[in-house]
Amino acid sequence: MRSNHDDEHTFKEFNPVQWTFDNPPRILVPIANGSEEMEAVIIIDMLRRAKANVVVASVEDKLDEAAKLSYDLIVLPGGLGGAQTFPNSETLVNLLKKQRESNKYYGAICASPGKKATAFPAMCNKLSDQSEVENRVVVDGNLITSRGPGTSIEFALAIVEKLLGRKLALELAKAVVFGRP
Amino acid sequence: MRSNHDDEHTFKEFNPVQWTFDNPPRILVPIANGSEEMEAVIIIDMLRRAKANVVVASVEDKLDEAAKLSYDLIVLPGGLGGAQTFPNSETLVNLLKKQRESNKYYGAICASPGKKATAFPAMCNKLSDQSEVENRVVVDGNLITSRGPGTSIEFALAIVEKLLGRKLALELAKAVVFGRP
Repeated sequence: MRSNHDDEHTFKEFNPVQWTFDNPPRILVPIANGSEEMEAVIIIDMLRRAKANVVVASVEDKLDEAAKLSYDLIVLPGGLGGAQTFPNSETLVNLLKKQRESNKYYGAICASPGKKATAFPAMCNKLSDQSEVENRVVVDGNLITSRGPGTSIEFALAIVEKLLGRKLALELAKAVVFGRP
Repeated sequence: MRSNHDDEHTFKEFNPVQWTFDNPPRILVPIANGSEEMEAVIIIDMLRRAKANVVVASVEDKLDEAAKLSYDLIVLPGGLGGAQTFPNSETLVNLLKKQRESNKYYGAICASPGKKATAFPAMCNKLSDQSEVENRVVVDGNLITSRGPGTSIEFALAIVEKLLGRKLALELAKAVVFGRP
């Protein structure tokens, strides 16, 4: 058994832009009851290992407080229960709208229509652009998407690479015994 | 960037034995402050997806209660802080002794001396048998070991394969978008 990713690179990129950010980057990971534990924990833990300033806030509890700050990146873990709750949070929807309008970065292991993206296999038919759903991690401009628990480490590494550079991403991959070198 | 595992199989096996168990298998995952979050959550989540009966107990809190039951498998997540606390728990040490004496299964993402095993790179010099430390997952009889956060999914899949069969392990790998088929 092996992962599907045989390429040296972790992600496929479209409309490439240089991501700029505060140092350290401030990242919001909203969660909800039913969020996929592995996806949430892998994203949070990997980004903290990369010394990002990661804020975790439940939409059922602390998100209103967390929404007072602005974030370089907002990234949503999957998990059907959580993903169904997210659109019901006015605070989160407004945060994501503001993020897009202000040309900042956002991401999901999930569906995100209207851009080149990937998603969990069972959700892929909801994507308006089906062309890149087979990739494990897709970056389209300011949007980064991925597929599931088994792609979460690559997803986190791609975020680290976009924000903090490939050298650090490779060091982090080695530190967690994931990849080369 | 890619993971290091290029083989179809997730683990290297020595002294192979057929693992037998209750159905569903009852698995204990002891944790402590400082346990590596990714390793703990990936093991727990993957094994629960495989319908194992997973008991999570902190050595600082609920382990005495959990120790009243017997387990088909006891598996220790890594994380330096947690790994340093584990040997101080008399309850846990006794549980692991009993597990070994009763010919039951145990595992760790960590060092486990006296058998063919693998471990986190910085800990490998503590293993008495250095011959197999480069493998991502090693099974030696009743003992299963692995290396770090980046090998945790393979580790969990290997446990599922030993306990519940390769077919289910392959289905689970596919379900979390990790591996082939």
